[in-house]
Amino acid sequence: MPQFAERMQGAQRSFIREILKITADPSVISFAGGLPNPASFPVTEVAAAAQAVLAESGASALQYSPTEGYLPLRQWIAERYRAKKGMEVDPADILITTGSQQALDLAAKVLVNAGDPVVIEKPGYLGAIQALSIFRPHWRSVPLHEDGPDLEALDKALAGAKLFYAVTSFQNPSGLSYSEEKRAQVAELLRRHDSFFLEDDPYGELRFAGRDLPPVYKERPEHSLLLGTFSKIAAPGFRLGWIVAKGEVMERLVIAKQAADLHTGSLDQMVVHRFLKDNDFEAHVLRIRKLYGDQCRAMQEAIARHFPKDVAVTEPEGGMFLWATLPEGLSSLELLKLAVERKVAFVPGAAFFVDGTGDNTLRLNYSNADAATIDEGIRRLAECMQAELARGRKS
Amino acid sequence: MPQFAERMQGAQRSFIREILKITADPSVISFAGGLPNPASFPVTEVAAAAQAVLAESGASALQYSPTEGYLPLRQWIAERYRAKKGMEVDPADILITTGSQQALDLAAKVLVNAGDPVVIEKPGYLGAIQALSIFRPHWRSVPLHEDGPDLEALDKALAGAKLFYAVTSFQNPSGLSYSEEKRAQVAELLRRHDSFFLEDDPYGELRFAGRDLPPVYKERPEHSLLLGTFSKIAAPGFRLGWIVAKGEVMERLVIAKQAADLHTGSLDQMVVHRFLKDNDFEAHVLRIRKLYGDQCRAMQEAIARHFPKDVAVTEPEGGMFLWATLPEGLSSLELLKLAVERKVAFVPGAAFFVDGTGDNTLRLNYSNADAATIDEGIRRLAECMQAELARGRKS
Repeated sequence: MPQFAERMQGAQRSFIREILKITADPSVISFAGGLPNPASFPVTEVAAAAQAVLAESGASALQYSPTEGYLPLRQWIAERYRAKKGMEVDPADILITTGSQQALDLAAKVLVNAGDPVVIEKPGYLGAIQALSIFRPHWRSVPLHEDGPDLEALDKALAGAKLFYAVTSFQNPSGLSYSEEKRAQVAELLRRHDSFFLEDDPYGELRFAGRDLPPVYKERPEHSLLLGTFSKIAAPGFRLGWIVAKGEVMERLVIAKQAADLHTGSLDQMVVHRFLKDNDFEAHVLRIRKLYGDQCRAMQEAIARHFPKDVAVTEPEGGMFLWATLPEGLSSLELLKLAVERKVAFVPGAAFFVDGTGDNTLRLNYSNADAATIDEGIRRLAECMQAELARGRKS
Repeated sequence: MPQFAERMQGAQRSFIREILKITADPSVISFAGGLPNPASFPVTEVAAAAQAVLAESGASALQYSPTEGYLPLRQWIAERYRAKKGMEVDPADILITTGSQQALDLAAKVLVNAGDPVVIEKPGYLGAIQALSIFRPHWRSVPLHEDGPDLEALDKALAGAKLFYAVTSFQNPSGLSYSEEKRAQVAELLRRHDSFFLEDDPYGELRFAGRDLPPVYKERPEHSLLLGTFSKIAAPGFRLGWIVAKGEVMERLVIAKQAADLHTGSLDQMVVHRFLKDNDFEAHVLRIRKLYGDQCRAMQEAIARHFPKDVAVTEPEGGMFLWATLPEGLSSLELLKLAVERKVAFVPGAAFFVDGTGDNTLRLNYSNADAATIDEGIRRLAECMQAELARGRKS
């Protein structure tokens, strides 16, 4: 066996993906995954787009293509930022990536030396923890409140940090979003520390309550990267994401991208662009928002009916996740053992904490089950919580 | 601007991709690219496969899928190794990658620490030099002869090396292949040094002369990685490659893959599998072999007609490239300047050498032009060579 690179020491398969193996049993109600609802996939429209692209431009759809990505797709993304967020983005500042997971890998590759302090939310997105950890940063984490990060903790953490990574809207795992005020305050802190910001926005289009807000990126584009994806607004099977970046940072990202996989699938890019162009995308996104909004409400109502009162739950305005906090001292990993017996699954929260805390938290996904299933699953889970609470009181 | 990671110091965009910008001018005859001939793309068959997959399994084709890859595709690859190379490969030992470029990134990520001695052929594949260089190996290079690497140099280079990277069949850039005897000798040297072998085989299916040979991997699967791709036998626009690996190495590769892009496109994998299953793949590959064989012969004949006699050229038995060596002291970079004026392009060889040599070499691609165009391009290039030779003699 060869000696492995130091960067792989301690690297593990995603805990979530391991839990998903349990949920392959169809009798298990799973709130563990982070999958978009396949009912939202535009299968017919994609089939039509694929036919059109292959009939009209088959040779280029199947050939190598530029590392930067398919220009019309980059132009569509830029135009969407202009129309929806009032942002002026040059298509040349958009790099198409193989899902936004690759954007995390490339950003880390280009920016992070072993030992560099990197700031993340607590809880933080597991995919980012995994991608960045390979480049061995020194993690610092900042608690997340209902309206965004704890500013005092962020102020302290940013001192001398290489970058701050955050999911500012409908975060995975917590479902929380930065308020308008917090966005401005975070931008101000980043400015004061001259910090680099890695803003991940996979769920921004999926708002079903409240008012749309622009990314923090908009305040300091020269000192930020903004990540987006088609996984939640078209389909994840394409593996299509993007990075918005400028100047020398973009140049390095393109170099890293070229070394990583030359370019993202040509056919995928052309098919998704064609789908966007030939269909009413606005109506499509509204359908997804409504679907997830309804399912979120179903889960919230089921929680109100069944959960013990001392379990705290977040109130998302969009996205795919709810976040629950058990009374201090209880373990969601213990809860999971009971839950699996009762045929319901979720993700214990500890995996989302880089500081070893979060033992009493859990992530609940609502995008991938109907209201009746959600109610039944939450009922089962509540029973397990009652059992854990009783056990906790005894010990 | 943020401080970049040390690994990006000196990392550059591919020189080849920069040259390709020159060749965007349609009046330029380009032997510079490394593109498969789009005439070989199964456009109609892919369109039919895409329709079938989306009609029958649209939801799973557009959903997230396992990091390891689509099992039926992995089974197809394993069966092909059995049928064509007499190799027993477990589908569980195959990881689908986003092109075989990603396989290089993952292998380097998992294996290479900064400063680790890594052995490569001289000339060596530029994509590998780029992917691995980001992880900052200490390069050692071994001259390539007509029948494979210089064994004495390889013996010396392997001492204490982390791994040996090689393209054993119809190499990019040289077009050279390891003979049966050299394969055995290389395996023996690897065994003696207990070295790890990274064998890249993108062109193995494209033999148009001589007898098929199994990869060196077959001799020591426990101590090797074998890389393959659909880019040259289906189409590169899918970005579909694979790694064959075992045990703990595979486990680490899967972890790195998950962090890098979660998984390779679900739709792409299912469409290519469907294309392979529903069509006569053997006949398809034979058509590509014949096409490239004919074009290689056209280039060889044109070279015999036009090139100065003191320019040496390799004689490929497959693949997409010829390799020319100018008399010592002449520079292919200087030649390129003349060539671009005469509207013909190639890739100067120096980029393929990790030791700063190779100034008098050049790569010629024959897969992407018809016989008449090849003859005209070689004629123009020969004129430039004559001019360079005359200049060389004068100075």
